[in-house]
Amino acid sequence: MTDRPVIEFWYEFASTYSYPAAMTIARRAEDRGVRVTWRPFLLGPIFAAQGWKDSPFNLFEAKGRYMWRDLERLCAAEDLSFRRPEIFPQHTLQAARLALALADQGLTPEFTRKVYHAQFAEGRDVSDFDLLGSVIADLVADPEKAMAKARSDTIKQRLRDAVDEALARGIFGAPTFMVGDEMFWGFDRMDAALNWAAGGRDG
Amino acid sequence: MTDRPVIEFWYEFASTYSYPAAMTIARRAEDRGVRVTWRPFLLGPIFAAQGWKDSPFNLFEAKGRYMWRDLERLCAAEDLSFRRPEIFPQHTLQAARLALALADQGLTPEFTRKVYHAQFAEGRDVSDFDLLGSVIADLVADPEKAMAKARSDTIKQRLRDAVDEALARGIFGAPTFMVGDEMFWGFDRMDAALNWAAGGRDG
Repeated sequence: MTDRPVIEFWYEFASTYSYPAAMTIARRAEDRGVRVTWRPFLLGPIFAAQGWKDSPFNLFEAKGRYMWRDLERLCAAEDLSFRRPEIFPQHTLQAARLALALADQGLTPEFTRKVYHAQFAEGRDVSDFDLLGSVIADLVADPEKAMAKARSDTIKQRLRDAVDEALARGIFGAPTFMVGDEMFWGFDRMDAALNWAAGGRDG
Repeated sequence: MTDRPVIEFWYEFASTYSYPAAMTIARRAEDRGVRVTWRPFLLGPIFAAQGWKDSPFNLFEAKGRYMWRDLERLCAAEDLSFRRPEIFPQHTLQAARLALALADQGLTPEFTRKVYHAQFAEGRDVSDFDLLGSVIADLVADPEKAMAKARSDTIKQRLRDAVDEALARGIFGAPTFMVGDEMFWGFDRMDAALNWAAGGRDG
């Protein structure tokens, strides 16, 4: 296990193209013998550093219109349900902290997929605490404990550190795939990143 | 011939990802029985409408750094030479007008490939009139005539019309592939666009 090549999957819960990535990366990595490290982070502070106060898909209307149609096509091609959420982008601070809080139990991938499904397959608002609570309740015996851990200073700091690390490594969007220092940005580049990790160097 | 499905290939000579697209689209379209309509245009007026006075790859440094590395990898994977030009983005008004001026003779694709090769395989400045002149001289018996046509009001207006059409159809970057009203943006989506045109609907 430890000798398997590693790919880091950096994702932001509000990121639309992170949805198909999160739903498909585990299987495609497994097919290539690659291990996935799940790296939830926040894009808000990174966009703010570029002078943006909103998603570029809202700031640039033509780009946003295209993105929703493109995402719909991609989901159809990947056989993923898709429903455009009314709220975009959504507040994802709690979801990101919970994803980190569940890491020790190895539940980050499953939690992540459930949150993306709620947001982009069911069109729901994943900033909602009840929704997050019910997702957690599906995964662990003691949901209150997980929720409390997500509010701890340790986890809060871990998320801040993840954002700082993303900035330091030049990550500017999501999903981003890192293979060592090699960066691949966008769902469209996921297969190339996995091939790179597997040693095929098919950039 | 006229019954073949059509894909419109919208490109800007200064666009880095348009380079691998321009070099590979003809063959990949041929493989799928798809006819390519070459649509040179200018991104400058479109970026200006979004409030940008430079390439987003220069405005957003991390994105720019990533793009050059990504392009280098893509070119290696496509077996295309790559040399980063010192000047970026380049002034491409003359090249775009020449591409339109050569359309009647069916020479737009070959001219386009030569200009991209000069810029991104040799790292040269394609705003240079002598360079453009020598490219034209390789293609036609009377280069002066082609250069004069590129300066005509008809061609100038044709380019302005292309930019207006791009804006009206929601095109916001390059390369963009249009299959009827279906838009695909980026070299990464070229194969999906060609499959869509061919009828596979593999978005």
